[in-house]
Amino acid sequence: MTADIGVCGLGVMGRNLSLNITDQGFRLVGYERSPDLRETARAMGLDTHGEIGEFIRDLRRPRAILLMVTAGQPVDQIIAALLPHLHAGDVIADGGNSVYCDTRRRLAMLNENSIELIGLGVSGGKNGARHGPSLMAGGNETAYSRFSPIFTAIAARANDQMPCVEHLSTAAPVGHFVKMMHNGIEYADMQMIAEIYDFCRKVLGLTATQIADMFQTWNEGPLGSFLIQTTALVLSRKDDLTGAALVDMVLDSAGQKGTGRWAAITAAKLAVAAPSITESVTARIVSSLHSQRQRAATIFKSQRTKPQSIDQELFPDALLAGKICAYAQGFAVLSAASQHYDWGLNLANIAKVWRAGCIIQADFLDEVKNAFRDAPVLDNLMLAPAFVESLRRTVPALREVISASVHASVSVPALSASLAYFDAYTSRHSPANLIQAQRDSFGAHGYRRIDRDGKFHSDWR
Amino acid sequence: MTADIGVCGLGVMGRNLSLNITDQGFRLVGYERSPDLRETARAMGLDTHGEIGEFIRDLRRPRAILLMVTAGQPVDQIIAALLPHLHAGDVIADGGNSVYCDTRRRLAMLNENSIELIGLGVSGGKNGARHGPSLMAGGNETAYSRFSPIFTAIAARANDQMPCVEHLSTAAPVGHFVKMMHNGIEYADMQMIAEIYDFCRKVLGLTATQIADMFQTWNEGPLGSFLIQTTALVLSRKDDLTGAALVDMVLDSAGQKGTGRWAAITAAKLAVAAPSITESVTARIVSSLHSQRQRAATIFKSQRTKPQSIDQELFPDALLAGKICAYAQGFAVLSAASQHYDWGLNLANIAKVWRAGCIIQADFLDEVKNAFRDAPVLDNLMLAPAFVESLRRTVPALREVISASVHASVSVPALSASLAYFDAYTSRHSPANLIQAQRDSFGAHGYRRIDRDGKFHSDWR
Repeated sequence: MTADIGVCGLGVMGRNLSLNITDQGFRLVGYERSPDLRETARAMGLDTHGEIGEFIRDLRRPRAILLMVTAGQPVDQIIAALLPHLHAGDVIADGGNSVYCDTRRRLAMLNENSIELIGLGVSGGKNGARHGPSLMAGGNETAYSRFSPIFTAIAARANDQMPCVEHLSTAAPVGHFVKMMHNGIEYADMQMIAEIYDFCRKVLGLTATQIADMFQTWNEGPLGSFLIQTTALVLSRKDDLTGAALVDMVLDSAGQKGTGRWAAITAAKLAVAAPSITESVTARIVSSLHSQRQRAATIFKSQRTKPQSIDQELFPDALLAGKICAYAQGFAVLSAASQHYDWGLNLANIAKVWRAGCIIQADFLDEVKNAFRDAPVLDNLMLAPAFVESLRRTVPALREVISASVHASVSVPALSASLAYFDAYTSRHSPANLIQAQRDSFGAHGYRRIDRDGKFHSDWR
Repeated sequence: MTADIGVCGLGVMGRNLSLNITDQGFRLVGYERSPDLRETARAMGLDTHGEIGEFIRDLRRPRAILLMVTAGQPVDQIIAALLPHLHAGDVIADGGNSVYCDTRRRLAMLNENSIELIGLGVSGGKNGARHGPSLMAGGNETAYSRFSPIFTAIAARANDQMPCVEHLSTAAPVGHFVKMMHNGIEYADMQMIAEIYDFCRKVLGLTATQIADMFQTWNEGPLGSFLIQTTALVLSRKDDLTGAALVDMVLDSAGQKGTGRWAAITAAKLAVAAPSITESVTARIVSSLHSQRQRAATIFKSQRTKPQSIDQELFPDALLAGKICAYAQGFAVLSAASQHYDWGLNLANIAKVWRAGCIIQADFLDEVKNAFRDAPVLDNLMLAPAFVESLRRTVPALREVISASVHASVSVPALSASLAYFDAYTSRHSPANLIQAQRDSFGAHGYRRIDRDGKFHSDWR
């Protein structure tokens, strides 16, 4: 009964997090059903059990158990297996990509047994887990304090040396909700990068190496981020089998683990506009219709017009404009959820934990943090002074890039959605007056007027 | 015990449907809780009860009861109130906009009591209800036959005199699912019309009357439809209070009854791309942020460039291209749902019932019907020969209109989403190879190759 923490599930993420924890001097014991994974973990020096009673026996009380198993049924299964062995006051943290509604359900069930649950978003992939992830936590304060020293020790450090971990709310689902929105934003970042890449490749005829060099340069500017750097890296890699650029040998059919799609669904359920995120999910779906696309391409051939000459300086500005719009949407969803569920989220703190360790880590997030710190009740991130200035400078480039893409038959759903969002949000007059008039005309839904209060209905014939 | 059908709920839709039914010679009895609505119904000659036992007593057995109450809890309440009075073999049809999952739940509950439930989508607004709606039904065959003669008699007639009613599936949820997708498509149709209107108004400086004339002309061509006609009508109407165009006095903040949003959510849950529908829902959401938009507009002022000269002949072609893409998405969702739930939907029959009576009624739907009739396993509506030809002709106009709007700061989310969908779906190479490479690089998700089978993982550094 001496281990500080128990970790259930020693796949690549669980194993790397565990190594990170033991590196920081904590006593850790693991539980893993698979004999192979158990062997791997033991070979790396991790004290690992295959029997749950033995695992539990090694933990000091109140017990702190971190689940690193696949989201969904496996989480319910491991909780059911643990439950008979636990005592009042023990705490489970779920570090997988659980849907936040599942976390609410599990919390209620565990609370009935006097067990606490921490919802824990973990981002950073396998390297983040090993050397410093970004951790987003929600749950009971006392329960959280059981994990707090460990999480603080293992988390990534931002440029100002602050650890990228926050106890964001006393509500457990928050950890998974915030991670879900992180992933939604990640989808948008990646899709907009892919759209610029597609233009460079198809219209400008640049090679992967040439495009890699562009991204490498952009990484020095305001776009500087893990994802831009990863893009440059990935585009530079040669294929061991053919010698070609490896990216050119990869099938153009994207998978999705579901969190991005859940972010889009959640935005719609909360009636918050998040079109850049949603369109990025859609783009992955269409990419996966690989054989249909081949048939459709044959039928329509290319309608592509002559390659347009475009100033390549426009690309990073266009990407930055699109990025600001996408982040504004993501934070708008977080803000709406906080109100809806009464979570009391501090958006600055969310930006703060995303500054390092996670996939969307970027210098940019320092500015986002400052924007929400300086104006906690900001209507929309786009209206923060720093971003007003950025958008004024960069939106014209976004217009040029979209227009060129539209003429060149390059699909730019996320960039277009970002601009349409900006143009709609900043427009004094939307065309929804026509929509309301139509609805009143055929459905007698009524309408409001611009010059007097009340609800009106007209016979429009 | 002589009435052929009972109708619960005599608001404007229930009342008008009831008058339609009695006009056709059926004996009908109504039930309505509100004394005011009861009076109105009686004044119109409808035999109406305020007591459920009396209502039931008047119905011949097996009873056929049509619910025309607001979707949600009211449906559960009226079913609970009816249930003690019903006998095995009685049939309820739910004619409201119920979420299809609720219909599945209610069906199971009613079947336990040997009562059947028909899910019934009703479209056409108050005029459709009174003079001929479009009816989309799902449910048990025998149960449906109890309503069939009535529905056939009251439904709208298409140009070929076929009644716009179909028993689409033996699964009850289908009626509401199909109606939900009808509404999703309706959102997209309306939004794309609104985007063109917005351009004409803001960039070309046309008056409502001038724009009305344009839509009136387009109504004679391939766009000919109830919604285009309604647009012309609505734009022509003068305000009794000010003498201005009434549409200019309507507040530009759109409401939504929820079915459009449910269509978007459902598409995402089924992992089907329906961006034109989704973006139309998003546009309504942004329009409703009225005061935020005013502040944002003040901050950003207009970045609008000089009005572009644009050939007005491009508008109807652009709208038609966008429309084809939106319908293709709507039918793709229907097709995926049919597979997922094993509903055996005949897409041609769905297009057939939408040809008249409903809000999206249009000549265009004859072509959609023919496309699915001629090729029931069509990958995508855009690939039907008639639509291939239309798209080849009209997509260039869509490119021009979007490009001009993008430069003029006119938000065109649905038109852009339609084009991005077309360009993505018809492109041999998507940029998802980059996305897969990135995901493998930071998350070890693995990727497939274009030149050999299997799953691969690389060290990308």
